[in-house]
Amino acid sequence: MTAPWHELAAAHRENQRECINTDWLLSPELLAQIAGIGQSDEGRLIARRAVDKSKLLTDQELEITESYSVRGLLEGIATGRMSAWEVTQAFCKRAALAQQLTSCLTEIFFDTGLQRARELDAYFSKNKKTMGPLHGLPISLKESFQVEGQFSTLGFVKSIETGPASSNSDVVRLLLDAGAVLYCKTNIPQTMMTADSENNIFGRTLNPHKTSLTAGGSSGGEGALVAFRGSPLGIGTDIAGSIRIPSLCCGVYGFKPSTNRVPYGGQAPFPYPMLRVPGGITPAAGPLAHSVEDLEVFMRTIIGTKTSNAWCYDPQSLPLVWRNLKTTEENKQLNIGLLAEDPEYPLQPPVRRALQEAAARLTRAGHRLVVLPHNATSSGAGLGGRLSFQYYAILSPPSNAKPLDHILGEPLVASVAKGVHPFSSGFPVSPALDLPQRIHELTEARDAYAAAWHGLWQENTLDVVLAPGAATTAVPHDSYGVPVYTCMWNLIDYPAGMIPFSKASRDLDPQSQKAVGPFEPDYDPDSCDGAPCAVQVVAPRLRDEECLRAMRIIDKVLNNPPSSNHPVLPQ
Amino acid sequence: MTAPWHELAAAHRENQRECINTDWLLSPELLAQIAGIGQSDEGRLIARRAVDKSKLLTDQELEITESYSVRGLLEGIATGRMSAWEVTQAFCKRAALAQQLTSCLTEIFFDTGLQRARELDAYFSKNKKTMGPLHGLPISLKESFQVEGQFSTLGFVKSIETGPASSNSDVVRLLLDAGAVLYCKTNIPQTMMTADSENNIFGRTLNPHKTSLTAGGSSGGEGALVAFRGSPLGIGTDIAGSIRIPSLCCGVYGFKPSTNRVPYGGQAPFPYPMLRVPGGITPAAGPLAHSVEDLEVFMRTIIGTKTSNAWCYDPQSLPLVWRNLKTTEENKQLNIGLLAEDPEYPLQPPVRRALQEAAARLTRAGHRLVVLPHNATSSGAGLGGRLSFQYYAILSPPSNAKPLDHILGEPLVASVAKGVHPFSSGFPVSPALDLPQRIHELTEARDAYAAAWHGLWQENTLDVVLAPGAATTAVPHDSYGVPVYTCMWNLIDYPAGMIPFSKASRDLDPQSQKAVGPFEPDYDPDSCDGAPCAVQVVAPRLRDEECLRAMRIIDKVLNNPPSSNHPVLPQ
Repeated sequence: MTAPWHELAAAHRENQRECINTDWLLSPELLAQIAGIGQSDEGRLIARRAVDKSKLLTDQELEITESYSVRGLLEGIATGRMSAWEVTQAFCKRAALAQQLTSCLTEIFFDTGLQRARELDAYFSKNKKTMGPLHGLPISLKESFQVEGQFSTLGFVKSIETGPASSNSDVVRLLLDAGAVLYCKTNIPQTMMTADSENNIFGRTLNPHKTSLTAGGSSGGEGALVAFRGSPLGIGTDIAGSIRIPSLCCGVYGFKPSTNRVPYGGQAPFPYPMLRVPGGITPAAGPLAHSVEDLEVFMRTIIGTKTSNAWCYDPQSLPLVWRNLKTTEENKQLNIGLLAEDPEYPLQPPVRRALQEAAARLTRAGHRLVVLPHNATSSGAGLGGRLSFQYYAILSPPSNAKPLDHILGEPLVASVAKGVHPFSSGFPVSPALDLPQRIHELTEARDAYAAAWHGLWQENTLDVVLAPGAATTAVPHDSYGVPVYTCMWNLIDYPAGMIPFSKASRDLDPQSQKAVGPFEPDYDPDSCDGAPCAVQVVAPRLRDEECLRAMRIIDKVLNNPPSSNHPVLPQ
Repeated sequence: MTAPWHELAAAHRENQRECINTDWLLSPELLAQIAGIGQSDEGRLIARRAVDKSKLLTDQELEITESYSVRGLLEGIATGRMSAWEVTQAFCKRAALAQQLTSCLTEIFFDTGLQRARELDAYFSKNKKTMGPLHGLPISLKESFQVEGQFSTLGFVKSIETGPASSNSDVVRLLLDAGAVLYCKTNIPQTMMTADSENNIFGRTLNPHKTSLTAGGSSGGEGALVAFRGSPLGIGTDIAGSIRIPSLCCGVYGFKPSTNRVPYGGQAPFPYPMLRVPGGITPAAGPLAHSVEDLEVFMRTIIGTKTSNAWCYDPQSLPLVWRNLKTTEENKQLNIGLLAEDPEYPLQPPVRRALQEAAARLTRAGHRLVVLPHNATSSGAGLGGRLSFQYYAILSPPSNAKPLDHILGEPLVASVAKGVHPFSSGFPVSPALDLPQRIHELTEARDAYAAAWHGLWQENTLDVVLAPGAATTAVPHDSYGVPVYTCMWNLIDYPAGMIPFSKASRDLDPQSQKAVGPFEPDYDPDSCDGAPCAVQVVAPRLRDEECLRAMRIIDKVLNNPPSSNHPVLPQ
């Protein structure tokens, strides 16, 4: 590197700060005050309405950022009741505040976004029609997506010297084709392989529900930004839970599709060699948002319902269309398998309570719930987690290479240095095998795991599985455990989404609980109080449409959201 | 092995012969006579109507085996005009004759098939309805599919000692569910990796169009049996052309779907360890038949149009349904890319003539033909072939293991010993790299190849590519070259089908042509005279439905088959 790592990082951070309009920058004192430092609800930015206290947003901007679904915004703009510019301005302002309170952003390009919004407004005014189905909608992107002219550091100091991207990721091209407005990228962990979105350039993303808790990772910046309503729709990626973990930590809706349905092509490259062993576990791009319907708008638009947009730019994407399922099926009675708790990864009390309450409500609503057996050697979450981590190990630089901090030329952040892994109880496949033989045996083991799940599905004629999103809610920084309950579904490429439901409560969940495994956090009722809970909904591979339909049905029972036929609109 | 290989093989062959009703066995003299030994049309079993000369089939059996489409047979049985038993009996008899003339069969279980047919007839008679959409249809299977109670030798003597299969392959289960009648399995090459279906148990399959020519491989028994009309529908598998090569050699229709659309689960195991490196090139199961419509009946029924049959038994299959494209689109004007001839694999004169004639007719019929450029370093057939063969090398036993004949305990047949490969002009990825690095670089290279094809598709807004099926037609035994024109599509998992069109002719293609590469055969107008020609139709991954639709449109222009709405039925 041309300068010590910390100088490069500090310069980049300074450039970032300069991208925020100075009128939108709050003094440290005001920030401390609105975050409630020293108060009983310190750091509960959402519950204490930090956004109101900042007085940064006008009433109209508050309304734009809070009272509309994605469809509501799109309809507002498409009917001329709002301009793309005013919508973009509102979200830029709110994102600026979110950044100052939670460090959720990396690249900030509000100016580019506002300029784009002006162009869209001019187009609309001239042609009396929109440029595309996402005309004027501000959309935030995880750091790893490339946007022309913007840096893609992946949180690696080394990558700053690569300079700005010269092309767009494939999903970015589709978003722009559809008329979206891009205005910021969001924070991630160094390496993108931990659940704490911290790195040496952009620092640590805090959870807006409670800043002492992790926002999750690796799409942690998205989780925090969307939860703070600094974005109506964010795009993340998920190879072990990286969309779903921030969704559950930050109390937003998130969806990890089957791989290669949303184009993944053109992601920013890692600054060190990664071994490409196809057929391992591949990441999927997907949305984080405020409702199931918002998630669907993204999926439907990006994939296309008539012709396959997904295949338009990305040769690896499946040339499938998004299937619009019959609306009459929205009242379908679901066969729901309830995932068994893995005794090696026991659920913490708030998680268990939320899941049980969800199951009870669903049963009362007339759905059929089947409690699936726990089987540690065929379908268990722990086994799925261990197999997944053996795959992730293949992707990383070989262990006989230099230590990672030497490769990177910067210190490792705490969550990376910690090296969370699930191997207290042994490897399913011997790590001593040479790589080809190890891949061979992992393939056999994964096929057996997929066959076990296939068997459970067919025997019980399941529509979906209802599962915990993790053993815990958001936990104090750098204490998140092994994400077995999410990565088990990446292993077999099943689509899975998170629905926020209930909150951890020191009153309802008063009993602390000691962790079982070495990397698992204890449950402390006080530190987790107020953290969102969530349930995970899972469907078989490529049944993304059925997964989202079931999520909508389940969400209706659990959260009774505004009807999807009547997006929230001002009267 | 418990006995010398040749004793085991001879005993198995003897058992096989005993499975044919002695009334159906012809004397060697009669066989020689009907094959025309010593005549000018020696071995042209189809052209000289060997079936008539045998006098084995009744007029009605001749009609059943010759005058019906698959749909015609199904409708005939479903309306009670024919019984499943008489249809099965007719095809068993004809298959018995095909076997004696071409050695196309391996396991013969006519009795089981006839018994099953009786049961189906009884069911129909009792319930006044069919058991399923394939009720009563005899279907032949490549040796590698497992059928309970039948051997699955894969042509390896060693595998005889494994004994009969104790379970059905997944596609076999679906065929039985649908009411099909299974009655025989068909011949393949030792190793299943050559284009000559010869092994030490069942001998060599001959081409019924001309027995001095190869029937192709590895589904060569299917090619010969279907061409001889000893089966209305056969199921093969294809990892380098194993459905398409026999189709083109034997002048029948064949379709290699995208992988994992037709269940591949439960194939017979190889008798030696194969390294499973997923994400390499995986085989696809698919049909050989007498028309595009017949191919479609299989695809539609096995995959299912309402719910996904494919996923019913096989966890690896994609849970997609078969899309019934709008019938109005059958008159669609196609954008057809014409594959460029690779100068390293020049087409032999009959192949070039047939392709040019096909292109000319399609242009005259109003379709748009775009001549695609040859690019040896991005999209060329030769490059695709070389990359594919580097993948196949990974699957085989490591080269530092014992020689293959020692592993097998039997001599290698000529086509296996020959070791056809495309590496006269170098490896795209250094074979000296250790396996993980080699897989990594192969992945990059294949992605680049897929991206090049994706680019050609999008730039030219193609519906399909029209391509040669091979550089040659069927050629004399053990002289088939490197199958670059088929395996290039396996490499990127594009569905591809063969349409028979025209024949090699010493009059129309009189000029001999010297081969360019070391494994390529010369073109000799006399030896190839009468061999079927074919064109290959290719569509992008998972556009199997569009591929078959285009095949139907193209077939109509080239061969003007009976209308799909009016299956061939007796008046």
